[in-house]
Amino acid sequence: MDSTLKGSACLADLVKFANSVKQKQRNKKHNQQWENTMDMHTLTRELQLSNDSKIVMLVADGLGGLPMTPGGKTELESAKIPNLSALATLGVQGASIPVKPGIAPGSGPGHLGLFGYDPLHYQIGRGALEATGIGFELQEGDVAIRCNFCTLDANGNISDRRAGRISSEESAPLAISLRQVKIPGIEIFVEPVKEHRFVVVFRGPGLGGNVADTDPQKTGVPPLAPKANDKASERTAEVAKEFLVQAKKILASHPKANFHTMRGFANKPALPSYQEVYGLKAAAIAVYPMYKGLARLVGMDVVGQAQTLAEQIDTLEQLWSKYDFFFIHFKYTDSTGEDGNFAEKVKRIEELDSIMPRIAKLKPTVTIVTGDHSTPSFLQSHSWHPVPTLLVSDCCRPDPHTTFNESTCITGGLGHFEAQYLMTLAMANAGRLGKYGA
Amino acid sequence: MDSTLKGSACLADLVKFANSVKQKQRNKKHNQQWENTMDMHTLTRELQLSNDSKIVMLVADGLGGLPMTPGGKTELESAKIPNLSALATLGVQGASIPVKPGIAPGSGPGHLGLFGYDPLHYQIGRGALEATGIGFELQEGDVAIRCNFCTLDANGNISDRRAGRISSEESAPLAISLRQVKIPGIEIFVEPVKEHRFVVVFRGPGLGGNVADTDPQKTGVPPLAPKANDKASERTAEVAKEFLVQAKKILASHPKANFHTMRGFANKPALPSYQEVYGLKAAAIAVYPMYKGLARLVGMDVVGQAQTLAEQIDTLEQLWSKYDFFFIHFKYTDSTGEDGNFAEKVKRIEELDSIMPRIAKLKPTVTIVTGDHSTPSFLQSHSWHPVPTLLVSDCCRPDPHTTFNESTCITGGLGHFEAQYLMTLAMANAGRLGKYGA
Repeated sequence: MDSTLKGSACLADLVKFANSVKQKQRNKKHNQQWENTMDMHTLTRELQLSNDSKIVMLVADGLGGLPMTPGGKTELESAKIPNLSALATLGVQGASIPVKPGIAPGSGPGHLGLFGYDPLHYQIGRGALEATGIGFELQEGDVAIRCNFCTLDANGNISDRRAGRISSEESAPLAISLRQVKIPGIEIFVEPVKEHRFVVVFRGPGLGGNVADTDPQKTGVPPLAPKANDKASERTAEVAKEFLVQAKKILASHPKANFHTMRGFANKPALPSYQEVYGLKAAAIAVYPMYKGLARLVGMDVVGQAQTLAEQIDTLEQLWSKYDFFFIHFKYTDSTGEDGNFAEKVKRIEELDSIMPRIAKLKPTVTIVTGDHSTPSFLQSHSWHPVPTLLVSDCCRPDPHTTFNESTCITGGLGHFEAQYLMTLAMANAGRLGKYGA
Repeated sequence: MDSTLKGSACLADLVKFANSVKQKQRNKKHNQQWENTMDMHTLTRELQLSNDSKIVMLVADGLGGLPMTPGGKTELESAKIPNLSALATLGVQGASIPVKPGIAPGSGPGHLGLFGYDPLHYQIGRGALEATGIGFELQEGDVAIRCNFCTLDANGNISDRRAGRISSEESAPLAISLRQVKIPGIEIFVEPVKEHRFVVVFRGPGLGGNVADTDPQKTGVPPLAPKANDKASERTAEVAKEFLVQAKKILASHPKANFHTMRGFANKPALPSYQEVYGLKAAAIAVYPMYKGLARLVGMDVVGQAQTLAEQIDTLEQLWSKYDFFFIHFKYTDSTGEDGNFAEKVKRIEELDSIMPRIAKLKPTVTIVTGDHSTPSFLQSHSWHPVPTLLVSDCCRPDPHTTFNESTCITGGLGHFEAQYLMTLAMANAGRLGKYGA
């Protein structure tokens, strides 16, 4: 009897406890609605207006630079840019901070910021970014994984984590051979990337992206088994295990790449679309797969087949009437900076300057010239330095500057601002944002 | 046996649930310690000091402007402002961003920002703002509702959502006739506003503000019944229903305004007071009801009966010894901008300039001249452009500027800053903020 009573009491207590927790959760939800601070996307969803304006955002990748010697000029300061200077006279400029002061971003966060997506809030998993970078079109629920060919010794321990840095020529057919792997109920994609790297994507129901890396990050030990970090990813871990069993057989006879590791498991990131957030029909005109992929993740249409900047502007002209917003990506200000080729970066900036009149002829309501980060030739890498950013519209409140570079932008009318606010400035200047509150 | 098993299973489930909840709570506590950031009001509550300083915040509504033609001057740049220029020489200036870059605020969020209340966190419901705007003093727990007279056809469908835009002369007595409505236990206020608009306030216990609009936003259909969106607002929905039943009888015979809709139900917003947040005894010297109302919502005393700027300064002089902080609101820089009357806005800025010596004579510890947003005559509306803001104190660290306008402020010593930080700057310059941390 006692034990029964005890049992009941205990049960009653637990029921009471469970109910009180549920009530607290309900209360919390209600309070959050009242207390929480409105985020920028909620705001732009509420305030967005529709009109016939056109916005052009020209992103010169890695635009910002540094002098090569103390007292010297940057790439942008060295370039002859009569057209950008003319625009600067009409426009307002500022220094765009890609993420936060001191933070040098990769292409992913750099572009998310420019697109108006807080790059510390929205994160693209490594696998998803790798797949995006090679132009793979991820679908909702896909899991993308970065894979490295590796070498196992006779005991099954890793002797080389990168399979002797196998060449792309040798690794690509190997990656393609892994397309033989078959797992019932799962669609599998295997895509070569470069040298020892390739991408695997699993498509099927109930695949969470939270699985631990199988790369032990050292040699002399065996690869780890795929392990789910949450319940929703257990099926993914099983599928990955089965993939590895079959891959081991396929690769077994290769002298260097006789196995592979799996890292950066990630679902397609859940990013709201430009249409939802801004009410904009947006087109991306890019040459490289990575930037097409990033634009696709925020719901832009990737348009045209351009291979050069001039061809990109051809595409812009052809589709001018079809879209509200155009993202044009120019790669070479970044790649020349990465190469440390100051003179070539200057030339590429001048190439950019030369096409500005063709954009102006279209009479965009808002023209923006910016970069996703700086890539100083001096550093040969992405950097944290604010990016010279120019905005032109007929209500932009021009500042006194008559040219455009790292020195002028720091005293421009846009001040120093986080890149994630560039889109609200663009929307406001296009007359596409209503008043907040009465 | 079965039932015991079942019981055990249930008990086991509950124990598992309870344990998982406890683990989640532990995790959450850990995360909160890491994630929670101190907000500005917690900071100023902790750091506030008391002294005899006086702060004057002069808000020229819609102060910022734009040139009317490319290369032209703004209103402030065109005005003769010898006194403001003299202050600028002594002071430090900057560009105040009302909410976030690109966001044009209404008067509510514009002033909340200047008062130091994050305008994306503190939101004033539409009904509460409308009541505030006509000078109605909302009390804790009141529900305010914006109402529109409308026309119902013989079938009870709305044929005109604004009762043929009935004139104020005709609608005011009609609104007042609705004061006949009686509901036991509820105090009811009905106040005319303008044309088809009036305000209803319910006062009584247990009235939540979360009730859906009854305006169907289209004609040819009947008005909606008031519907509570949460449990706490169910009584409010019932009271509104009863109000509408009685209103229908009172209005029945009117040819145009034979009924009304109810929109923007809202409780008085819960804003901490200036006394709590800053330890300031604050006075508001405003002419228009909206700004008196906004000041009252943050606990300022609304003082004086001034109808002109000169009379506002009379009030300031008279009450100088009684308060620590004075908010002076000047409306006409906004209304002239809204009218697109560039020349008149210039004159109003010159009027403002002319009274500055009277303020200076009182020797405020801190003098601030700013606006709640820009209202360029060019746009004839509130805009997102940063507002020229000037702060003078004997420890303000003056910048090199010798005049004050849109072009100078962008390179001023205050930089580009969100309006919500102006009050901490004011407090610091008044010696009213202690050191944060040891």
